[in-house]
Parts: sequence; C-alpha cells; structure tokens
Amino acid sequence: MQLMKDYIQKYGVAIGDNILKVDSFLNHQIDPYLMMEVGKEFKQRFEGKGINKILTIEASGIAVGITTAFAFQVPMVFAKKNKPSTMSDSYNATVFSFTKNKEYNITVAKEFIQKGDKILIIDDFLALGNAILGLKSLCEQAGAEVVGVGIAIEKGFQAGGKMLRESGLHVESLAIVDSLQNGKIITR
Amino acid sequence: MQLMKDYIQKYGVAIGDNILKVDSFLNHQIDPYLMMEVGKEFKQRFEGKGINKILTIEASGIAVGITTAFAFQVPMVFAKKNKPSTMSDSYNATVFSFTKNKEYNITVAKEFIQKGDKILIIDDFLALGNAILGLKSLCEQAGAEVVGVGIAIEKGFQAGGKMLRESGLHVESLAIVDSLQNGKIITR
Repeated sequence: MQLMKDYIQKYGVAIGDNILKVDSFLNHQIDPYLMMEVGKEFKQRFEGKGINKILTIEASGIAVGITTAFAFQVPMVFAKKNKPSTMSDSYNATVFSFTKNKEYNITVAKEFIQKGDKILIIDDFLALGNAILGLKSLCEQAGAEVVGVGIAIEKGFQAGGKMLRESGLHVESLAIVDSLQNGKIITR
Repeated sequence: MQLMKDYIQKYGVAIGDNILKVDSFLNHQIDPYLMMEVGKEFKQRFEGKGINKILTIEASGIAVGITTAFAFQVPMVFAKKNKPSTMSDSYNATVFSFTKNKEYNITVAKEFIQKGDKILIIDDFLALGNAILGLKSLCEQAGAEVVGVGIAIEKGFQAGGKMLRESGLHVESLAIVDSLQNGKIITR
C-alpha cells in the first residue's frame, strides 16, 4: 500500500537496526485518515472470504481493527492483556514479547468468538509473530477459522511473516520494511 | 444520543447496582457502526471550537477516540499506561482506579501535546472522573487547553460528571445512566 509506505518514509524513525518508531501516526498519535484507508485496503484484499469478525489485541491494534471492521461491516473484538473482573468464561493464551522480554496473557470472552466464525486477525506490527500465534490460538480454542491476517507494517527482516505464511496462513502486510540499517528505512 | 441509549437497553447488562456491562458493543467486542455515529455526534456537539487534537486513554477509549478524530479530521493521541522504552520526554499523571482499586500511571510523549493545542478529551465511560482528571493534567502540563470532554456513557449516579462540570469543564455524555438497581437500567 503506497500510502503506508509514504507515511513510513515521511514520519517513521529508525532506532538502531531493529526498532521502527511510528508513534506519530500509528501507535501513540494516530492518523484517522490513514486508519480509514487501511480499513478499506484490508477489505479489498480479503473480499469475498465470508469474514464475519475482526480480532485484534489491545492497545495498538484497536484503531486499525475498528476501521477494518467498519469497512467489512462486522464487529471487532480486541483481546485483553488483563482479564477484567466482570469477564466470566474466557479463552486464554500466553504470548512472549521480545520487545519487552516478558510473557503476557491474552484473553477473550468465550461469547465473542464462536465455532464457525470466519475471523480476520488484524494488528499494527508483525515482527516475530508471537502475538498473532496467540490470537490464532484463541480462535482455535473456540473452533473458529482464521481466514487471514492483516498487518499494517511487517518487519521483513524478522522471522514472523515467513513463519506464519509457511504455517499456511494468508498474511497481507500493507508495508514490509526490509532494513533499518544506518538509520535508513528500506521498504519492499 | 438515542442510538447509544438503545444499545445500552438492548445489549447492556446491570451487574449489581454499580457495574454496567457493555462489552458486547463498547469495550471488548465493539460495534464499528455505533463508533462512527458516536464520532459524528461528538463533532456536532463540539463544532466550531477550534479543536485540533483528540486525547484519550488506552485501551477502551481508542475506538471511540479514532472515529471522533476522523469526524474532526484531526489526529488522535492515546495516553499509555506503561511508558514504552522508545518514548523519551513525556508528561505523566497518576490515576486511581476504583474499579481495580489501584493506582496507575498514564503517560504521553511531549511532542504530541503542545502549548496552544485545543484538545477534546474522549473516553468510553465516566464514573468518578479520575481518568479524565489525569488526562486534563497531561494537557495542563503541556500548556494545552481542554476545550471539552466527550463521554460515551456516564454513570449519573456517581460523582464524576458533577465534579468535572463544577470545575468548569464542558462535558458531553451521549447517554447518562441514572440507576442500575434491581437489574434494571434507567437512562436519563
């Protein structure tokens, strides 16, 4: 998606060889026009697959998830990192975050993912793919089908995209960053 | 806003006299159509006030914040509950959550709230108003003006709304719940 690549080049900042800072438009300050365009783009890429629910994870997935849900006219569910006291039965998974170097739990109420659901998983970033595997696990526990995975920015120099695609998932990334070396952002 | 009241009556669940569960359309599973309508409604209510930024707080504020930002065609910033390692200078505030009975920090990068900004604070719920006071503090630290506060659902039987309005803030709630007694949801 040219618009996403343009935003990355214009507003993204490479920090070392591994971190792409996009907090001016994607995950702290968020550009609502870009989010709406992202929603429409995912709709085009996953059209006709019978998707009836969008699943994402708090917090950075929510903005891109809700605009995608709007484009599809289906509900969005976001997995929570802490189980609220009012949540009764839930599906749970453990995710290891390399960025934060710790494990965390993700949880979704059973009533919101059901057998037969055709789910599009959406997230802002794909690096090693652990969050996506956690969300996929929640779907599998429910007997729901993961129809595809939509990612705003994939770090192409990390292993997550390859691993997820080789596992048979249909992954669409709107921009793939191949390198951040020497402060220069190279998109595919 | 009649649509919000309708959703509350149709899908909301009173748990005891204090908790209104709206996780089927507002803060776990989220209805994107409702969110877009909420954004348009806030645009109407705060029209002409020169708002140039929407400020909310993760995670449940993000969906309603981004659609409001889209309606205003301005950026949205969400305050984070944990300071990321890549965030340099930040404004910080402490919020006491009665729901979780603990304090937490909220933080926003200094570059995203600036002196002279005219800010609309958005959140999904208003009970005692502590989260709003925290967000207001972040704005004050930056020298930004809080032009108004937009709330999806206010618990009218708790003190936050009265306290914020008496402090001089322009608070608009799309639905005010006056009572949850005996499992019956009474909206104003």
